[in-house]
Amino acid sequence: MTNKTKFAVFGGGSWATAIVKMLCENQNEVGWYMRSTSTIDHLKKHGNNPNYISSVEFDLNQLYLSNDIDEMASWADYLIFVIPSAFLHLELEKLTVSLENKVIFSAIKGIVPETSLIVGDHFNTFYKVPFNNIGIISGPCHAEEVALERLSYLTIASADSTKAEIVANALRSDYIRCTTSDDVLGTEYAAMLKNIYAVAAGIAHGLGYGDNFQSVLMSNAIREMKKYVKRVHKMKRDINDSAYLGDLLVTGYSIFSRNRMFGTMIGKGYTVKSAQLELSQIAEGYYATKSAYHLNQQKGKKKAKTPIIDAVYQILYENKDPKKTFKKLTEKLD
Amino acid sequence: MTNKTKFAVFGGGSWATAIVKMLCENQNEVGWYMRSTSTIDHLKKHGNNPNYISSVEFDLNQLYLSNDIDEMASWADYLIFVIPSAFLHLELEKLTVSLENKVIFSAIKGIVPETSLIVGDHFNTFYKVPFNNIGIISGPCHAEEVALERLSYLTIASADSTKAEIVANALRSDYIRCTTSDDVLGTEYAAMLKNIYAVAAGIAHGLGYGDNFQSVLMSNAIREMKKYVKRVHKMKRDINDSAYLGDLLVTGYSIFSRNRMFGTMIGKGYTVKSAQLELSQIAEGYYATKSAYHLNQQKGKKKAKTPIIDAVYQILYENKDPKKTFKKLTEKLD
Repeated sequence: MTNKTKFAVFGGGSWATAIVKMLCENQNEVGWYMRSTSTIDHLKKHGNNPNYISSVEFDLNQLYLSNDIDEMASWADYLIFVIPSAFLHLELEKLTVSLENKVIFSAIKGIVPETSLIVGDHFNTFYKVPFNNIGIISGPCHAEEVALERLSYLTIASADSTKAEIVANALRSDYIRCTTSDDVLGTEYAAMLKNIYAVAAGIAHGLGYGDNFQSVLMSNAIREMKKYVKRVHKMKRDINDSAYLGDLLVTGYSIFSRNRMFGTMIGKGYTVKSAQLELSQIAEGYYATKSAYHLNQQKGKKKAKTPIIDAVYQILYENKDPKKTFKKLTEKLD
Repeated sequence: MTNKTKFAVFGGGSWATAIVKMLCENQNEVGWYMRSTSTIDHLKKHGNNPNYISSVEFDLNQLYLSNDIDEMASWADYLIFVIPSAFLHLELEKLTVSLENKVIFSAIKGIVPETSLIVGDHFNTFYKVPFNNIGIISGPCHAEEVALERLSYLTIASADSTKAEIVANALRSDYIRCTTSDDVLGTEYAAMLKNIYAVAAGIAHGLGYGDNFQSVLMSNAIREMKKYVKRVHKMKRDINDSAYLGDLLVTGYSIFSRNRMFGTMIGKGYTVKSAQLELSQIAEGYYATKSAYHLNQQKGKKKAKTPIIDAVYQILYENKDPKKTFKKLTEKLD
């Protein structure tokens, strides 16, 4: 089927590992770039990623491993980036190979902090990748459940529906269903915003709010997301589709979500710095909050009403007291 | 404020107890009817309901307790019914007092099995209560969190906005926010349907589906609910408001939900009978499934597409295998 098309995954985290696993269900060979030589060495020796969803065992005959980003980018036709947005810029600086004729799919949920761009725009602006060669892989999906082969649904979005279908076919299996969509911007912004709402859910939890409030918060969050995404890219979409609402729910309700955990610590009184140190992982929602907030402010009178994003921004970036800020927020929700 | 208006709650369960608590925050005297004389005796002696959210301590000076439904119905102006729908018909048969000049609010989430009517319609049809005197109290709200005075939001719906506002004012407090609505039918049907979706969430959980699938199920459920409620009563509503989506989420994600628990047991292979015996409580979703399914079927060509309700119906009432039925269902979701 797609055996001639070469797919490579860039990144060594849990979501990257999960996507490699999905591709291995269908492809004879899957490229996998990661920074760390020691992880590659471990993989070559033991057949698993020691750091993330290590229960997944790979057939080494199927993997083409490299820590040379240029080598991997030259080899592959479809490049799937799954590097945390905070490190993407740094990683891409190593690249000397042109991406102009490559198809780029992003499974990154966030904003590139250095450029304040969502990943698709970043590739388009700085690497001259035409929008027709850009796509998004979106949840709702925890990598941990892919490892367990629990039924999961993905949304593959691209302006070019053929390319979306090619990636969907490469990922589909017994336990992976894929829907395609042409709402690249909506899907990407929704994936970014949901991390902010997961931080908000965490803050509420950390402050002692319960399940009743959580459901009200999520109900307000999806309405806020709808307004926000409409401002970014107006098109006919049902915000309750899995790519938007489902993705919000799987993150907002998950106790495993880094973003929710980060929020919980903030709600419990940790500073941003100490929470980040403690988690030793990047909460994408932290950067997303800043970008989403400023992007909205730039729209002046046309900005969306986003009381939840605003509250998270005030707490994370203006040092406002979480308890007081959330008390005020509760009065704006219904 | 509303001190002249007399409110009485009918029912002895956890949600009834929670509503009595809310009313006690504002009212000098609150009527409370329940069947069980022993519970009334315990309340009079110890100031709490021994069976449900027993941590809530009542000031006995505020309570007007009776197990005579006629006496309580005569006394009160606003009658709030919180009796499980499966017992409502039986309880109301004791009533000889006319309800024609009373205002009836229902906090019951379900269908009266004997008449297949939602509670508002039941009172209108059999007790000649005009629709202008009928209203709904809806969540998202777990009684357990009201007991803990955790911030919760209610929706009070009535065709007569003044009456909705009177009930809202009677319930509002530091920890209870109330929104009013004129969508009585939509609110009541949504409250009923969400119990079916909670059963579905439980079945999925019992069968071993994970959080990824749960989020897809809920995303499909809210779209199904939107279609269903639109068929029942077409009006401009945002299905993502707390009364609809919030209520779905608080039930569908709660491990404390009776309906979800019931579904989990079915998914794990219990028969309906053994699950009901084990739980020793009525899962409203069991009756709601039958009513909602048949009501939809009656619409013939105009029926809504409801793959989730249909699957739950087949499992609960047609003895279909949960595993196979849900496997088929997963192919209809996206």
